[in-house]
Amino acid sequence: MRVKIFVSLKEGVLDPQGKAVERSLHSLGYGEVGEVRMGKYMELSLNLSSREEAEARVREMCARLLANPVIEDYRFEIQE
Amino acid sequence: MRVKIFVSLKEGVLDPQGKAVERSLHSLGYGEVGEVRMGKYMELSLNLSSREEAEARVREMCARLLANPVIEDYRFEIQE
Repeated sequence: MRVKIFVSLKEGVLDPQGKAVERSLHSLGYGEVGEVRMGKYMELSLNLSSREEAEARVREMCARLLANPVIEDYRFEIQE
Repeated sequence: MRVKIFVSLKEGVLDPQGKAVERSLHSLGYGEVGEVRMGKYMELSLNLSSREEAEARVREMCARLLANPVIEDYRFEIQE
């Protein structure tokens, strides 16, 4: 199984990296760009056969290590 | 328009951050995890009305600033 995990900052949490990218894009001439928010993207393979078990395990991994639930949201997609 | 951009390391490029996450997951008891690859995830808003123009502009932004085409691949999704 392949899992894609997307971690992004919660609404309202300051994102200085996103702001820096936004300013760089503006100075390169991309004035049409509005707000930029940065996040993390992870791909991992899982040696499990049950989709339910995979979902539960990935949710646990996100809560314990991959995302910081205080300031970040996550979502994931599982492909068989 | 909202754009989601996913940047990941090309196949074969060493990913020490992914390796570190992989080892941490193993030591937390997630032995079912195989290879982990880390990437970047960005969300941005665009003040454009044509989808074709948006695609061309985002492709250009990725090539010039958001991804390093030597070691990274990117893909993006545009939502109206």
